[in-house]
Order: sequence, then structure tokens, then C-alpha cells
Amino acid sequence: MLSTCLENVKKNSPLVHNITNYVTVNDVANALLACGGSPIMADEPDDAVEITAICNGLNINIGTLNSRTIESMFKAGKRARELGHTLLLDPVGAGASKLRTETAVNLIKEIQFDVIRGNSSEIKTLVLGSGTTHGVDADKADAVSNENLSFMVDFVKGFAKTSGAIVALTGAIDLVSDAEKCYVIRNGRPEMGRITGTGCQLSGIMTAYAAANPGNKLEAAAAAVILMGVAGEIGFKNLLPGEGNSTYRNRIIDAIYNMTGEALERGAKYEIK
Amino acid sequence: MLSTCLENVKKNSPLVHNITNYVTVNDVANALLACGGSPIMADEPDDAVEITAICNGLNINIGTLNSRTIESMFKAGKRARELGHTLLLDPVGAGASKLRTETAVNLIKEIQFDVIRGNSSEIKTLVLGSGTTHGVDADKADAVSNENLSFMVDFVKGFAKTSGAIVALTGAIDLVSDAEKCYVIRNGRPEMGRITGTGCQLSGIMTAYAAANPGNKLEAAAAAVILMGVAGEIGFKNLLPGEGNSTYRNRIIDAIYNMTGEALERGAKYEIK
Amino acid sequence: MLSTCLENVKKNSPLVHNITNYVTVNDVANALLACGGSPIMADEPDDAVEITAICNGLNINIGTLNSRTIESMFKAGKRARELGHTLLLDPVGAGASKLRTETAVNLIKEIQFDVIRGNSSEIKTLVLGSGTTHGVDADKADAVSNENLSFMVDFVKGFAKTSGAIVALTGAIDLVSDAEKCYVIRNGRPEMGRITGTGCQLSGIMTAYAAANPGNKLEAAAAAVILMGVAGEIGFKNLLPGEGNSTYRNRIIDAIYNMTGEALERGAKYEIK
Repeated sequence: MLSTCLENVKKNSPLVHNITNYVTVNDVANALLACGGSPIMADEPDDAVEITAICNGLNINIGTLNSRTIESMFKAGKRARELGHTLLLDPVGAGASKLRTETAVNLIKEIQFDVIRGNSSEIKTLVLGSGTTHGVDADKADAVSNENLSFMVDFVKGFAKTSGAIVALTGAIDLVSDAEKCYVIRNGRPEMGRITGTGCQLSGIMTAYAAANPGNKLEAAAAAVILMGVAGEIGFKNLLPGEGNSTYRNRIIDAIYNMTGEALERGAKYEIK
Repeated sequence: MLSTCLENVKKNSPLVHNITNYVTVNDVANALLACGGSPIMADEPDDAVEITAICNGLNINIGTLNSRTIESMFKAGKRARELGHTLLLDPVGAGASKLRTETAVNLIKEIQFDVIRGNSSEIKTLVLGSGTTHGVDADKADAVSNENLSFMVDFVKGFAKTSGAIVALTGAIDLVSDAEKCYVIRNGRPEMGRITGTGCQLSGIMTAYAAANPGNKLEAAAAAVILMGVAGEIGFKNLLPGEGNSTYRNRIIDAIYNMTGEALERGAKYEIK
Repeated sequence: MLSTCLENVKKNSPLVHNITNYVTVNDVANALLACGGSPIMADEPDDAVEITAICNGLNINIGTLNSRTIESMFKAGKRARELGHTLLLDPVGAGASKLRTETAVNLIKEIQFDVIRGNSSEIKTLVLGSGTTHGVDADKADAVSNENLSFMVDFVKGFAKTSGAIVALTGAIDLVSDAEKCYVIRNGRPEMGRITGTGCQLSGIMTAYAAANPGNKLEAAAAAVILMGVAGEIGFKNLLPGEGNSTYRNRIIDAIYNMTGEALERGAKYEIK
């Protein structure tokens, strides 16, 4: 049940360590607080290792990575793994540069993640070793569509199998899969792409959801994606004339803050393949 | 008079140098502008020393500290002290990691601060050398309550005496004290804890208040705490149905922007012990 | 035509690489998305060089510079120049510290910029080698006024000639000039100075405008300044009672998001000297 996943986050208030980019970090913090989690950020290697130890989950986002934060990602990631924490990787811009692609690929090689969440171009890059992107946005040619859905479901299941992680490939149609089952989710609004950081926020929230639902990580990851999508729809409906992407950002986080289990269930549009 | 403190900030527009975390830095800047101050940020050591020299106050916040910014904290802090500027320390996460605890403790050892502002767990850590936290939030066991109020007032006065700084321990009940007098402040809303960075914003504002009221720093520090609390109450009253923590953040800063001395006096709920 | 400049941005969605300060970076990203561009940020030297290569423009903003990001500015700047990309420099705080002044001056020496945008104190510092500032804000004595307008127009034209760049000196009256023509723009609101980052946002947007209008960079740069000013006026008109600088920030970006070519033409207040 999606609502159980939501309520477990509100009840347990998982503490999530985020090593993330400085572009969207404030929104990630507020989105985590909105969903009932608790954020903390640390990216100096020694500090990151120690901070991660007091947390329940670690969200690694490679946007605006640098040599210091990369070291922190590996060290904190290994420490979090030793401690059995929930680990999520958001490979922002994998495919757009060698440093990003290699960092993401090596993180996956050296650390067992629970969840990997990216757009279609980023996920393709992780599977194929190289890819095309439009900066930090997905290349349109890579999008999941009704036409290639069955192929993409198999593709995501395959990567979930080889990586041992739940894979969330998000876009107009979202796929969230372990090796067996794939949630095909059709919530959200295209206008969310005109706000910076909805993907980063989702990664933070998904870490909290997976951490607070340890026995049920696939459904928890799917619930987080559905939450973001339903909040995007509610936030859009709440926009007043003259409002645009900046206020839309606030209205989405506000909708996450006010989301009930019942509203989440009611708004969810998905099938399992 | 609280209103005099507020008006001195608006009149003098103190320039505040902030070496602060990248999570809430934008909100700190807008909160400083809202209250009538003027923010500047610099954290490369050479730049920080020079930038601090043209300012009236320095706000050191150790959230997301790293080796470069730590060096800047010490160097700029010493330079600001030489110049007689107002110096504030916000020991974010002290108690949550060795690096944070040691950095905060050593800053206090090497630099005379005018104000130290933190939550109850952070302040306890500074006094006792170690502590418990819930990440960057206070441990519930450390909270100031009506039951332990008299003990906590003495505790804060004691730390003010040994540190030579005004100590602001903020939470549901705020204590602002020098060695003699303690403001016990009951403004604010619990929902402020669901927004990232209200504490960081307060530290920026408090630096501006102390800098603009050099002969009256204790009352200025208390006025800043009361300002934040009253703004939190007004912002909460201004929330519309469906709005949540992201819009609440904006409405609090907006309330700071529109605050008058009269509204501050009228909204203030405090006693002096 | 200003509307053509606007429509070219919406049609071409230029990808803009921003090496910028962490105070206002989120607003820069949302402002770029609002105007129809697409933002990406990278500031580790190797990554920055590679990321810039896939972009159409590079926006270098020296606020919160550090030794790592300075290296990235020079390396990515040179790479972007080789590739014929649009290059903009925002010399935040030039005049306020030696590091900032020297970095800006050396960037201009080593890299041919298409546009240099700053406040009056920053631009004066670049021309004269040193200057006075009020932190990251212009010194009032440096402001463009009706009294010194003709002198300042010549000053800006002169700097455009020696630098080979379009120079945008922005404030209450904005001047945007190449060596021949100078747009004198009177859009905007004084309250924009109470929001952090409107200048930084403008630099991001201006990079997108110049990149999407390669044959017409002067008018594109002026159109970006007018866009920001008209959006500031619309955003101000849309403020509700009790709203202040934090919501005003959102309303300006929202107004950029909703701006049409027709509204831009209608709202523009400028003359060409």
C-alpha cells in the first residue's frame, strides 16, 4: 500500500545524508522535510563519513561534483553500506562528461546501491558506458513512450538485475523496477521540467521512503515517484494566473507537505508489468 | 526598546559577511536583506579576510564546512576581531561529528565571539565537549521546557560568562543571555522546524542586529530572536489553504521585510530572568 | 525587435553553462528555465571544460570564487572561446577585494568576452583597475543618473571599445552598449535591490539571449535587461498585501516565465544614444 509507505516516513522521520549539488540543495532539504524526513548535508570526507553514520540513508547526487565531494561520495558510501543504510545514487549528467560518467560507473562498481534514479539518458549511459544527453536533461530520443514501453521495461529490469539495485528511470513515463516487477507510472506534469531540481528532490525523498520501508523498498521507491507526480499535479492545479515556474516549485513542495496517504492512493496512476 | 534595535538596522544597513553552508545560504541572504542588512559571502581564505574587512559583522556558520572554509573561518574571524567587528558563531551540527565539534570548540578558543547561537544540543556540546543530536536538529531530550527552565537559564548564563559571548539557545523556548540577564522568549511556531534554515537565517539577522546596535548587543540579539519568532507567527497566519513549508519559508521572510518596530513590540512575548 | 530576441530563446532553448556563486545559483537556474533556456553547472576544472563544450554559452560569475572555481573559469572560458560559444562575465564584487578584482581583470585579459555585465562600481573597477563598492552592491556615488548620463554613456562605449565586449552596466538606469550604440533603459523597480541575485539571474538570461541571437548580440543583451526590468515591474504589481522580498523573487521569475514578445515590447522603456 502506497499510504503505508507514506505513513512510515512521517512516523519514522528518517535522517537522510545528502551529498548533492549546490544548485538544488535547498529544495532537496525542504522536500525532505515536506515528506516527513530530516535532511543533513556534509561533503568534507572525514565529516561525511561520520555524519552518514548517524543517518538512516545516504543520497549521492553527482551534479556539481568536485574532487573533494567525489572522495566523500566513495568514503561515505562505503561506510553507509557497512552500516546497512539505504543508499541511493542520482547520476546527474552521466553521459555529459567523462568525469560524471566514470564517477557514476565506479560508484556502482564499488558500492552496492539500493536505488539508482536518473533520467533515461543517464540510465542508458550507466548501462552502455556512454550516452547522449541534453546537458542535465534527457535526450528526447531516449524518452520512454507507449511505443517502446515493453522494450524499456525489459531494459530497466535488466539493469536492476545486473546492478542489484532498484532502478528508477523517470520522465514523462516513470519506470521503477527490481529484476522482477516494474511499476509504470503516469503521474506528473510536463511543466515540472521547467523547474530546476524536481529530480534531485525526488532522489532525496526516495531515499527517505526506502529507508523508512526497509522490507518493502520497491514499493517505497515507486510510492516516492508517485508522490512527486501527484504533488506536481496538485501544485499545478493550485497555480494562480500569472504564476510560473518559481512559484510552481513552492506549490509542489507544499503539496508534498500536505499529502495524505488517501490522496496519494487516489491520485496514483500506475500499472505493474 | 526592541523597535530601536530594528530601526537601527534599517537605518545603518550593516554589511554582514557570511561564511555559511550552501544549503540555506540564499535564504540567509534574503533574510538579511529583508531585515534591512546587506549580505556578502566569501569563503576562499584570502578573499574572506579582505571581504570581512569592509563589513560590519561576520557570521560564521559551520554547516557543510570543509578544509578550505574552515581556514577561512579562522582567518576571517581573527581579522574581524582585530577590526572590532561583530562576530557570531552558529555551531551547526556540533555534537554530530568530531570535525564539527572540534571546529566550533577551537573557534571559540581562538576567537572572542560577540554572540553564539545554536540549538540546545549544539550549545550543550560546546559546554560539555560532546553531545547528542538528531543530525542538525536538537535532541528532544535537550529541549528547554517550563520544567527545566530555571536550570537552563543558569546553564546559559554560565556559558555566557565562561565564553564572554552573548549566548542564544533557540528552540520552542528561546534563551538569550549574557552572564547577568536572560531573555526567555516564547514567540515562534513549531512548524518553523519543518523549514530548512530558519536557524541559519536568524544567525545572519542577529549579526546585523548586534552590529547595528553596538552599545546594546544583548537586547539586539534578543530583538532578532523575537523578530524571527513574530515573523514566524505572522507568516503562519498568512498561509493559505494548500500551502506548506516551502511557501511558509517565503512568508516568514516577507514578514521580516514588512516588520515595523511597533508590530515587533506588540508581538513580543518574553520575560527577563 | 525585442520580441524576436525573446522568441529565439524560447525556440532554440540555448544550453548555458554557469560557473557561478552558490548564493544565487538556484535562482539563476530557474530564471534560465523561465526565459526558455536550459542551465547546467560544473566547476571542477576537468568537468567544466567538458561540460562547456556541449553548451551554447558560458556565464562566468565570480561571486564566492575559490581557487578551484577560478581555475575552471579560465579553462572553461578558453575552451568556450575556441568553440565560438557566447561568453559572459559577471564580475561580482570586483573592487571589493584584490582576488576578485584581479580575477576579473585577468579573465578579460586572457579571454575575449561577448558581454560583460556588472553594476557601476564593478564596471568602474574593471576600467580603472580599482574602485569602491558597498560589498557586492554599487557605491551610491557611482550610480548612473540623468545628470551624468551623457558622461556615463561615453564611459560605457569606451569600455566596450577597449574590451571588445558588449558592456552592460545595470542599476536604476541600465546602459547596454557596444562601441557605437548605447541602450539607455529605464525599466525595473528599486525594490529589486532588496532581493539577492537579480543581477546574477540577469547574467544567466543575458547569456542565453546572446547565444540564441548570434547575429544580433547587442539588441539581445538589451532585450535581456529590458526583460528583467519589465518582469520586475509585473512581479511588483502582482505582489499581494503582506508579501515582501522573498515572494517578490518568485513573482519576478514567474513573470519571466509568462513573458510574451508583445508584453516585452509594450513594457520596454528605452532610448538609444
